[in-house]
Amino acid sequence: MAAANTVAPGCLTGVRVLDFTQFEAGTSCTQVMAWLGADVVKIENPEGGDPGRRAGATKPHRDDPYFLNYNSNKRSVALNVKSPRGLEIVKDLARKADVFMENFAPGAIERLGLGYDVLSKLNPGIIYGQVKGFGEGSPYEKNLAFDMIAQACGGTMSITGQPDGPPAKPGPTMGDTGTGMLMLISILASLHKRRETGKGVHLQVAMQDAMLHYIRNAFGITTKTGKPARRNGAKSLDGSNPPCDIYPCAPGGPNDYVYVYTSRANPQHWPRLLEAIGRKDLVGDPRFDTREARVKNEAALNAVITEFTSKRDKYECMRVIGAAVPSGAVRDTLELINDPNFEERGIIQKIKHPHNEAFRMAGWPVRFNGKTAPVIPAPLLGQHSAEVLRDWLGMSEDQVSALKAEKIIHPHAEAERQPAAA
Amino acid sequence: MAAANTVAPGCLTGVRVLDFTQFEAGTSCTQVMAWLGADVVKIENPEGGDPGRRAGATKPHRDDPYFLNYNSNKRSVALNVKSPRGLEIVKDLARKADVFMENFAPGAIERLGLGYDVLSKLNPGIIYGQVKGFGEGSPYEKNLAFDMIAQACGGTMSITGQPDGPPAKPGPTMGDTGTGMLMLISILASLHKRRETGKGVHLQVAMQDAMLHYIRNAFGITTKTGKPARRNGAKSLDGSNPPCDIYPCAPGGPNDYVYVYTSRANPQHWPRLLEAIGRKDLVGDPRFDTREARVKNEAALNAVITEFTSKRDKYECMRVIGAAVPSGAVRDTLELINDPNFEERGIIQKIKHPHNEAFRMAGWPVRFNGKTAPVIPAPLLGQHSAEVLRDWLGMSEDQVSALKAEKIIHPHAEAERQPAAA
Repeated sequence: MAAANTVAPGCLTGVRVLDFTQFEAGTSCTQVMAWLGADVVKIENPEGGDPGRRAGATKPHRDDPYFLNYNSNKRSVALNVKSPRGLEIVKDLARKADVFMENFAPGAIERLGLGYDVLSKLNPGIIYGQVKGFGEGSPYEKNLAFDMIAQACGGTMSITGQPDGPPAKPGPTMGDTGTGMLMLISILASLHKRRETGKGVHLQVAMQDAMLHYIRNAFGITTKTGKPARRNGAKSLDGSNPPCDIYPCAPGGPNDYVYVYTSRANPQHWPRLLEAIGRKDLVGDPRFDTREARVKNEAALNAVITEFTSKRDKYECMRVIGAAVPSGAVRDTLELINDPNFEERGIIQKIKHPHNEAFRMAGWPVRFNGKTAPVIPAPLLGQHSAEVLRDWLGMSEDQVSALKAEKIIHPHAEAERQPAAA
Repeated sequence: MAAANTVAPGCLTGVRVLDFTQFEAGTSCTQVMAWLGADVVKIENPEGGDPGRRAGATKPHRDDPYFLNYNSNKRSVALNVKSPRGLEIVKDLARKADVFMENFAPGAIERLGLGYDVLSKLNPGIIYGQVKGFGEGSPYEKNLAFDMIAQACGGTMSITGQPDGPPAKPGPTMGDTGTGMLMLISILASLHKRRETGKGVHLQVAMQDAMLHYIRNAFGITTKTGKPARRNGAKSLDGSNPPCDIYPCAPGGPNDYVYVYTSRANPQHWPRLLEAIGRKDLVGDPRFDTREARVKNEAALNAVITEFTSKRDKYECMRVIGAAVPSGAVRDTLELINDPNFEERGIIQKIKHPHNEAFRMAGWPVRFNGKTAPVIPAPLLGQHSAEVLRDWLGMSEDQVSALKAEKIIHPHAEAERQPAAA
């Protein structure tokens, strides 16, 4: 049953995606295609499938929330690609596919015999996407990468953390999901072009290169100063327009802070802030009346704001200050996942999965005519092995049964017993 | 002249974008459409245009690198939208547009008379995109937001920083560019659907909501533990598989660190790492031989690795360790922008702009058949006012001149004098 306030946008209905992705950089990309209506068929090795299914799993033989978060709305085929017949079936599926996507280690998909040169001959219209850690022509092109390696080498860590402390890794998985989104944009634009040309394309993105796209403000600073952009705590990178920071709130927990910002583009913000925090007496005070003065007297300014925030909780601070100037409570993941407003608006959805009851997850946050796309739980390993061969290749029950008997395809025993909640 | 190793992919050739965006969340979205071949026409107020042109500008009357980074490959029309004739022209342009995009403060575009209800009547096929800070139906739907507010309220700050320190803002502008990319995916998928239905759509995304998409690993942890995900310095959030951290390198500067990671999916990583750092003697040492042992003896393990890294620079460490296990030097923005390998591969491109000579910027990092898209410098304010009215509306020279005389459109004096480098 679809969550309230959702309706399938069906933008990509009829688009077939042959999905060889694993972990996150690739899976995040194909998942969004599935949310938007594509038929995404995940090909998995029968011995455990996508290693993301067990990454961080605290319960053996149970798909981890990590996996469920990046593979909803897809179908799973468990197929022995290393057998000659299995490889033949994959090539048959590739003939029917619009998009092929993979993020194995460098060289692995080519060694399987499924490189772009092979598949584009079978299907000249195929849009073939690859995510790697480093780009072809980089000195590190053969190296493995994970999210944190991309964030180290791609500059995001150098601008994250306290000014006097070591680099910190941004919590969001820019190296993975951040890269997956850029690949997806390129796939969708290529699909648009293909309607006219009929021609496919070979798309490649490196996780390191993708990081540069997200730190262009920092590059702008380097262009102007000739120096590396520096870490700046919770402030913006140039930090030249106080207040622009977090302020501590009651009762003093690790995320009890409120962000307060006054835009340099609007000189009314500062007096409005003073009024909101009951310090109209300071309007016109020369210590704070210009941007330059506020930079010079930042410590005194921070004391004025903290005097207000430290006596109230972060939500009250956000309510009062946010009505006057840009302001926001620092929210943690438990507060967010339990906030009923996200569920009411279809941004977070409650799903049932055989391995995780009443699981809440963030779906696609963009609304189409006021509604978000419904989330369907991630498939069990091999849940759709037979179904997909019938749908895409028109196989008969007998043909499918023979493939099962030969152990070329593996329907998941649990999946056959217990269909996923709809 | 296009940079080496680039070729226009032309995916979106013929797609017309009416661009009312400013700052970054909207401009980053329309810029990628321009990179991929769309005709993106930026409508700007003649009194300074997009406030991003001057945001952080150190030289008055010069477009800041901040602006140039998000508005390349677009055309600029300086038009007085608040005059009745100007508004009429915008509506005529909207009749010809495939996509309309804006990210003004809540309610502003509707007050201008350019809401979805108005434009969808003039052009039922229009794909109409809006980025706001908070979603419709949120208690904060009328509040202003900037990148840092979205990152505070959207959870990314709560999981970034040192475990015992305050929240830090991730350096990458997830709230802005991160949101713009999700809107762009939705626009492109809607363009695909429209080829069949002819119908447009109203797309809306909130910066706060978009942040949830990038922190799903953290939500996975919360699902399993029932607790907020915590900050973890440079480590991954669950941090349960050492080594997975940065290690200090010579000569000890603020970004002289190397990331070292051993995947739990590959038990060979740990002995390979020991061999790479010349400590084969420790292979099989019970203090480190299992994941559980490495967690318990993390301090001793870190000392072993630091003994190696602290005597070498970060690039040597990456070369030696990265050949064995996932590893990466922490690179700063100056090192990245000056690395010739990015220019050779078309990832960073050198452009000339009248206000900034020999400016290097990161372009679209995805390669299409081995090439990236060429970057064309951002337009001067009003550089294409006349040209666009001729192209889109078929106006005559006389009609355009009359609009100039009435000060409805404003060709930029400097633009008329000095064409941008091509």
